[in-house]
Amino acid sequence: METSRRVAAFVAGIGANEIPDTVRHEAKRSLLNFFGTALEGTHDSAIETAFATMREFAGPAQARLLGRREKTDALSAAFLNAAAGNVHDFDDTHLRTVIHPTAPVAPALLALAEMQRVDGRTFLDALALGIEFTCRIGNAVSPEHYARGWHITATCGVFGAALAVGRCLGLDADRLVWAMGGALAQASGSVETLGFMAKSIGVGNAARSGLLAGLLAARHYDGPEAPLEGVRGFLNVTGDKPRLEEVNGDLGSRWEALKNIHKPYPCGIVINAVIDGCLELLARDVSVSEIETIVLIGHPLLQHRADRPDVSTGRESQVSAQHAVAATLIFGEAGLAQFTDEAVNDPRVLDFRKRVSISVDDTVLVPNVRMVVGYADGRSELVEVEDARGTDNRPLTDAELEVKFRTLAGTYASDCTETEKLIEAIWSLDAQDDTGDLLTYAVPPSV
Amino acid sequence: METSRRVAAFVAGIGANEIPDTVRHEAKRSLLNFFGTALEGTHDSAIETAFATMREFAGPAQARLLGRREKTDALSAAFLNAAAGNVHDFDDTHLRTVIHPTAPVAPALLALAEMQRVDGRTFLDALALGIEFTCRIGNAVSPEHYARGWHITATCGVFGAALAVGRCLGLDADRLVWAMGGALAQASGSVETLGFMAKSIGVGNAARSGLLAGLLAARHYDGPEAPLEGVRGFLNVTGDKPRLEEVNGDLGSRWEALKNIHKPYPCGIVINAVIDGCLELLARDVSVSEIETIVLIGHPLLQHRADRPDVSTGRESQVSAQHAVAATLIFGEAGLAQFTDEAVNDPRVLDFRKRVSISVDDTVLVPNVRMVVGYADGRSELVEVEDARGTDNRPLTDAELEVKFRTLAGTYASDCTETEKLIEAIWSLDAQDDTGDLLTYAVPPSV
Repeated sequence: METSRRVAAFVAGIGANEIPDTVRHEAKRSLLNFFGTALEGTHDSAIETAFATMREFAGPAQARLLGRREKTDALSAAFLNAAAGNVHDFDDTHLRTVIHPTAPVAPALLALAEMQRVDGRTFLDALALGIEFTCRIGNAVSPEHYARGWHITATCGVFGAALAVGRCLGLDADRLVWAMGGALAQASGSVETLGFMAKSIGVGNAARSGLLAGLLAARHYDGPEAPLEGVRGFLNVTGDKPRLEEVNGDLGSRWEALKNIHKPYPCGIVINAVIDGCLELLARDVSVSEIETIVLIGHPLLQHRADRPDVSTGRESQVSAQHAVAATLIFGEAGLAQFTDEAVNDPRVLDFRKRVSISVDDTVLVPNVRMVVGYADGRSELVEVEDARGTDNRPLTDAELEVKFRTLAGTYASDCTETEKLIEAIWSLDAQDDTGDLLTYAVPPSV
Repeated sequence: METSRRVAAFVAGIGANEIPDTVRHEAKRSLLNFFGTALEGTHDSAIETAFATMREFAGPAQARLLGRREKTDALSAAFLNAAAGNVHDFDDTHLRTVIHPTAPVAPALLALAEMQRVDGRTFLDALALGIEFTCRIGNAVSPEHYARGWHITATCGVFGAALAVGRCLGLDADRLVWAMGGALAQASGSVETLGFMAKSIGVGNAARSGLLAGLLAARHYDGPEAPLEGVRGFLNVTGDKPRLEEVNGDLGSRWEALKNIHKPYPCGIVINAVIDGCLELLARDVSVSEIETIVLIGHPLLQHRADRPDVSTGRESQVSAQHAVAATLIFGEAGLAQFTDEAVNDPRVLDFRKRVSISVDDTVLVPNVRMVVGYADGRSELVEVEDARGTDNRPLTDAELEVKFRTLAGTYASDCTETEKLIEAIWSLDAQDDTGDLLTYAVPPSV
């Protein structure tokens, strides 16, 4: 059997009992994190403006928008919730591919769950499978796909969303292949748009297009037999020598969904270790004002992705190691407030970041860093970080995820979403009859 | 100035008087042809099913659908009209790139013209510019873009649609660059989907996404500075060594929109000369039943694209030279009815197509063919075709286009669209106050 056909047969055929509890639990963790980032992200201007533009064309008020009073049609809701969850790149991350897999997949399913009843177990299984194949397809074309310029969260996410929706709808393998054909026709997203509002269009569409592809396939809307591995299918067109075994090898025994991590800090993952080092330094009770230089000795990616001494906006600051160091040391923490326009332009931060430089050492792994701190009196001090928080070997605990969630959900406190009930509802989702109920706790109470 | 910026400045700045009348007239011809193909195509199951799926989510009845009683929201109308116009690949064709440029561009503008008044001259100028840049962007990445697997009509068309909508909205150059950023985030479409319903999703989205990108840009939804030529912009990601001068060279003096042709027959353009030859043979009053063999001596592309002796569906028959010869000679014409499932499975056609073979001669140009006809009595006869109808040197005349339009518009006669009024309205579009009026003649009279 060929790749697309094997994927479709697996997604159509795997029994709920064959999906390990660990995988299902990871899906819950991803969902919790996603709800948090969407509740915070929905008020970003990229989402507000998209909503204002699209509502003129929107259909019936079928589906809720996380953190908002308004409802909209299910396709638009999938778009807006996905865009909101990913807008600050604070959602889950599959490190090998840098995919944020839940943003395209979960909103497509949530929108579907408002059109028809979907029980919690069915939802979780579909979510886990959608995340799984988003990441597997990404693995098959990484790293060249992203390096060339494809925003992999969107381009691969649309396939995961289509498969997840198809699974929820109970499609057979033929129609799941067609759903992937519909995803192929819509797979888009550009690295060139990162840092701009336009990024959110790609991510929003991944969820919307995946939902549409699933719904069309349910009506026997046909597509090619090999949307993934065909000569002009997704993998060959957007990858170099794609590795098909990454997509369909060890199905049911190897789970990529277990390698999906959650960021503790709202910035590029390569900066995590640096922030951990700064927090460690603060824990040693040093005098920040006496620091004259900090040299970050890290993996080449630290320099490649985050050596940006002169950023001027909050958005840019998320990928600046210099800013991250300065802001963490000045403000004593590294939350959303430390990566805003205001924080970037704080005179103390502007002054401090000049003291930070980066030095490359090929032997340092990405989750690690060494920091050499030089003081005014000539002393120097070494901070070594191994396995930064939120990387593969040191994932956030469930309790830490809850803390992150509460912070995000509480950002717009006036909205009064029911944070604790939502946390509880997500942890117990397998036992619930109707996934749509989750959204009750994720929108402001009606007046 | 860089490429994207130059394109934006040109589209924002060119005066209506600087667009040659010949270019504007070609835009009318393309529009007439598009209305015809959409009136016929809208009843294809790929469009019916898409409409049935999408209407559950559709917004207010803002915009008309060509050839249908129902209205839908403007974004959905852009999708459905584009998909309908292109579904049988009988719309206009830019031969160098094989782009069908009007399907993504015109429906985006038509939908906009139902949201706000757009006078005929403004509409035509925007349409001409949208077609122009769809083709220019295609030139910059052809032929490798399509060869790799990008369905160029959709991938390049979304940029043309975004620019056309932006022009109509009077956006300045900054916002036109952002509109192209929004197009970049959504550029998709796969050659692998050709021959399947999934193709129509890509083409429909090109119009919808272009309209959305223009509307978002109008609200200052920002995007990258170089969506076309950026390191990870459209041209570098989807082309090999893109030729930027194709996009921004000779602006205002060289017009690609003049190289946009209209097919006389509903099949692959490489087959045109073959059908002309068959019609010539019939004009010589030969006895078809006595023909034993026909050898088509043509350009390598004839073999590469159309050597398909064993097709089984109407859709496949559109790219079968063997079927085209058999159907034309048996039925005496080569219209839509000759490329249906029924025609393909007619026993006389099945029998005759076995007599047809293809021989390659590198010296024969694409628009030409030589046909060697062998009879049962041992005689043989040569037919030579130079410049097939509907190719660059022998475009359909306006009168021939009208004939084609009447046939297409009349396919579903019970719909009673006002064919002659529509033809007249398109030819005189520059003088009209409201482009939206065109659609009055393109939908069935309300009951």
